[in-house]
Amino acid sequence: MSNPTAAMLVIGDEILSGRTRDANAHHLAGVLAEAGIRLVEIRVVEDRRAAIVDAVRALSAQVDHLFTSGGIGPTHDDITADCVAEAFGVPIGVREDARAILAAHYGTDEINESRLRMARIPEGAALILNPVSQAPGFRLENVHVMAGVPAIFREMLANVIAGLEGGPRMLAHSFRVGLPEGDLAGPLRAVAEAHPAVSMGSYPFYLGGLGSTLVLRSTDPAALAAAADALRARLADLDAEIAETPPG
Amino acid sequence: MSNPTAAMLVIGDEILSGRTRDANAHHLAGVLAEAGIRLVEIRVVEDRRAAIVDAVRALSAQVDHLFTSGGIGPTHDDITADCVAEAFGVPIGVREDARAILAAHYGTDEINESRLRMARIPEGAALILNPVSQAPGFRLENVHVMAGVPAIFREMLANVIAGLEGGPRMLAHSFRVGLPEGDLAGPLRAVAEAHPAVSMGSYPFYLGGLGSTLVLRSTDPAALAAAADALRARLADLDAEIAETPPG
Repeated sequence: MSNPTAAMLVIGDEILSGRTRDANAHHLAGVLAEAGIRLVEIRVVEDRRAAIVDAVRALSAQVDHLFTSGGIGPTHDDITADCVAEAFGVPIGVREDARAILAAHYGTDEINESRLRMARIPEGAALILNPVSQAPGFRLENVHVMAGVPAIFREMLANVIAGLEGGPRMLAHSFRVGLPEGDLAGPLRAVAEAHPAVSMGSYPFYLGGLGSTLVLRSTDPAALAAAADALRARLADLDAEIAETPPG
Repeated sequence: MSNPTAAMLVIGDEILSGRTRDANAHHLAGVLAEAGIRLVEIRVVEDRRAAIVDAVRALSAQVDHLFTSGGIGPTHDDITADCVAEAFGVPIGVREDARAILAAHYGTDEINESRLRMARIPEGAALILNPVSQAPGFRLENVHVMAGVPAIFREMLANVIAGLEGGPRMLAHSFRVGLPEGDLAGPLRAVAEAHPAVSMGSYPFYLGGLGSTLVLRSTDPAALAAAADALRARLADLDAEIAETPPG
């Protein structure tokens, strides 16, 4: 009943410089939650060979699935494919099946040297198809290498997820409470101790005054419902506005 | 002339689960770019002791400044302060100056055991003041520990940044071009090779068709302008819509 684990590696000079805001990690987090795959880490690193190779090695060893975004285009700063090959110590070169996809899309005349870079695939990798702009991603070992452009990342991810085995879906039951966490920590701790199979998180928000969102999570619907009943009973003693969202 | 380096650690079960989208990393990236501090990595980890301690140790050893967000509230899942103390091997306990700040805000009657958790500060740390809800963050060694609530993170960061020494500001000159990267990779590579002091990145976008944003970056305004002139001349040969954004 345990859930497979995943990590995300964003190759992202443009995110670290503050120029753009990453959208792929948040999208991936939602898709993995639906699939019952536990996302344990997101890392954003610079477009530098050593940074990418080190992160691919470290993360792919820690989790069942590593997803990467960015750095697989035709320009000189697109080095992700080479770095993933290096991380696993396998050769990389232009592969005929990838070249054929590009040739069908661009026509043979338009496949210049730069575009051919997008057909460089590490030995032993399987292609990830790209219905938006054709240039493929790939899977090598447990690493899924995808494009950074959000529209393409989403389509590639949809193709990848369909082939992965998920786990029991994590269910969430949340209470949005108009009181600061300091007033809720005691009740929450008591419920957490009495319901060890349910994970309980508290997330403060600030809208004029401090409020708290309490989130109970479990893959077991009955355990989750019992913990939610216990928390609801304790919150009823407080003079607070409460909005409850059961698992959807 | 070299720039100080920084990393960001987000303590973020709620981000990994897909429930919320992090806003603090993008805000920090923009503030650091303005200050001439180079952000080299962003990491989001689970609210688990081992994950936080390992990340604090690894990142604080790699960069000049590590910024953290999240996990410093009063509930049982707020373990960041304890983890940072453990990472540096220093004791942690309720500190009088932090308790006094909370007492002034809540009144002595309202400081329950849960709220007192927010006065737990590692030995040797300096407080980071919180004008929004008072409970302070802290700096220990090169680690700046701040709240996850965006309104509070921003105010704490403004207090921290005022005291840090930055480097020369990184300037960016960008060209948004209505052509896919495959048509631009050749010209871009030629300009990059002739102007090694200027970093050049290419970021595809997709709006009905593929386009590319080419970004030149340098701390040297004259070198940046020369590279931009060279790229502009090469782009003029192409039949494309171009929107140019010089350093602002």
